[in-house]
Amino acid sequence: MNVLVAGGAGFIGSHLIDALLAEGHRVVCIDNFFIGTKKNIEHLSGNPKFTFYEQNICDQDALSAVFDKENFDFVFHLAANSDIQASAKNPPIEYHNTYSTTFHLLECMRTHQVKKLFFASTSAVYGEKEGEHVAETTTPLEPISYYGAAKLGSEGLISAYSYMNRISVLIFRFPNVIGPRLTHGVIFDFVKRLKENPKELTILGDGTQSKPYMHVFDLVRGIITFKDGIQEGITLYNIGVETQTSVTRIADIICGKMGLENVKYRYTGGRGGWRGDVPVFAYNLDKIHSAGWQATWTSDETVAKTVEEVI
Amino acid sequence: MNVLVAGGAGFIGSHLIDALLAEGHRVVCIDNFFIGTKKNIEHLSGNPKFTFYEQNICDQDALSAVFDKENFDFVFHLAANSDIQASAKNPPIEYHNTYSTTFHLLECMRTHQVKKLFFASTSAVYGEKEGEHVAETTTPLEPISYYGAAKLGSEGLISAYSYMNRISVLIFRFPNVIGPRLTHGVIFDFVKRLKENPKELTILGDGTQSKPYMHVFDLVRGIITFKDGIQEGITLYNIGVETQTSVTRIADIICGKMGLENVKYRYTGGRGGWRGDVPVFAYNLDKIHSAGWQATWTSDETVAKTVEEVI
Repeated sequence: MNVLVAGGAGFIGSHLIDALLAEGHRVVCIDNFFIGTKKNIEHLSGNPKFTFYEQNICDQDALSAVFDKENFDFVFHLAANSDIQASAKNPPIEYHNTYSTTFHLLECMRTHQVKKLFFASTSAVYGEKEGEHVAETTTPLEPISYYGAAKLGSEGLISAYSYMNRISVLIFRFPNVIGPRLTHGVIFDFVKRLKENPKELTILGDGTQSKPYMHVFDLVRGIITFKDGIQEGITLYNIGVETQTSVTRIADIICGKMGLENVKYRYTGGRGGWRGDVPVFAYNLDKIHSAGWQATWTSDETVAKTVEEVI
Repeated sequence: MNVLVAGGAGFIGSHLIDALLAEGHRVVCIDNFFIGTKKNIEHLSGNPKFTFYEQNICDQDALSAVFDKENFDFVFHLAANSDIQASAKNPPIEYHNTYSTTFHLLECMRTHQVKKLFFASTSAVYGEKEGEHVAETTTPLEPISYYGAAKLGSEGLISAYSYMNRISVLIFRFPNVIGPRLTHGVIFDFVKRLKENPKELTILGDGTQSKPYMHVFDLVRGIITFKDGIQEGITLYNIGVETQTSVTRIADIICGKMGLENVKYRYTGGRGGWRGDVPVFAYNLDKIHSAGWQATWTSDETVAKTVEEVI
């Protein structure tokens, strides 16, 4: 196939490109390096099956020119802000980089008759559902972050464009995804700060915030497998792990892997790391398990593996 | 109160302004006359409690200047495209006029610390749920129109802005709303065409499309009543009538009121009027009924009353 990976220089996008190239597809990547990096895709330069465009997806004319030229069979849309903490302070980031990228890609798919889409959604669309194992049918959808809001809005847009233009869509709602090439988030942050000062570590909140961490290799395997069976309309799955790892446990795992002892944890206090952060989240994954996908590593194992990969 | 009615020159917005002025509030209206009309608000000129700004809500600087000057207590957001048939052919209308108006208003509310919002949402967020009486908890939310998608996206944005900025929000999901000052839709259209040719009438679809029609006076009474008890967080209600009126029944009511007999109906065939039109829809209104609001008129009565008002 001829595929577009929008946001392909990002952490997850670049791993997806590796997997798509390994399957023999011709891959076009568009990225503006807002979050993505040249380093993530530098190993692909010279690959005759890989083409890169450095541009903003919200430039409709430039995007349309790429669609004119490339004749895509499948669009993988991973172009979004992924730094929720940054947009909590500056919400227009999500309007421009998460919602509007979806709108402009869908407009090009409509005008260029591209009929297959993968969309990277998020558990953040659910909002706070403490004590509940959240399934795809859980309501109400009440995102508490601008990021979750823009992803929920994108899902809505995709629903209408899919119906109106007969686009087949696969949507995964991701948890925290980690692994090689990680550029931000709690693990990246803790490792960096412990390298600077191995004696103490400041931890946002009270350390009990607890979320499922999934490895990017498990996620990419899911996308690669399910893309081939894509159905008419929209197929939506939660993807992740049913276990969670607390922030204090992450700190313990990192200290263990780095061989640090007696590190003093300084908690800033409060339930969440920052306003808009969902402090406790757990998945119900019955739907994707029934469809034949299972994560390889638990949340704790994923954290431990990632720490080895990034330290 | 000092209130903003965004989209106040529209059909519903202008009735809401009348009701807010009648309660003694100071009302500022912003409208760009995309769908709204000067005629809808001309009776308010000279009213010292009414101020009008002709501008596009997506011009953030101009909008911010109005917020700087007016010091709002409450924002009523009815600025949206409402011609679903138009945006079915030209989806960017909804991106600009329905979703982006919400984003820019919320940004101004955030930066100007305005803490109360009413939002005009729609039954179109649900998508096709034939055979079901749709409640606020019904899932999945799968809009089939670009209009429904932009409204669902707006609800998502509102959820995050509400949480992050402690904005109290009242959301009503409207059905088809009709009454005086109606400027488009099936009733307006049938009356217009029967005046031109009283012998025959072309009806899109097979005429069995069936929806709840609610009178704008009932809707405005709901907004006026519930605004005073606005709660922290988001309170969301379906509002409407539990009965429905088919398109053929609308034609019959109009012909009856216009004194026309033996009008030949020519059906274009198919289930819906156009792609993106939900052909059959019914509400579960238990939540708003329990809260003390009931419609005055059934769907058929509302259609009959509106025909009298517009012929």
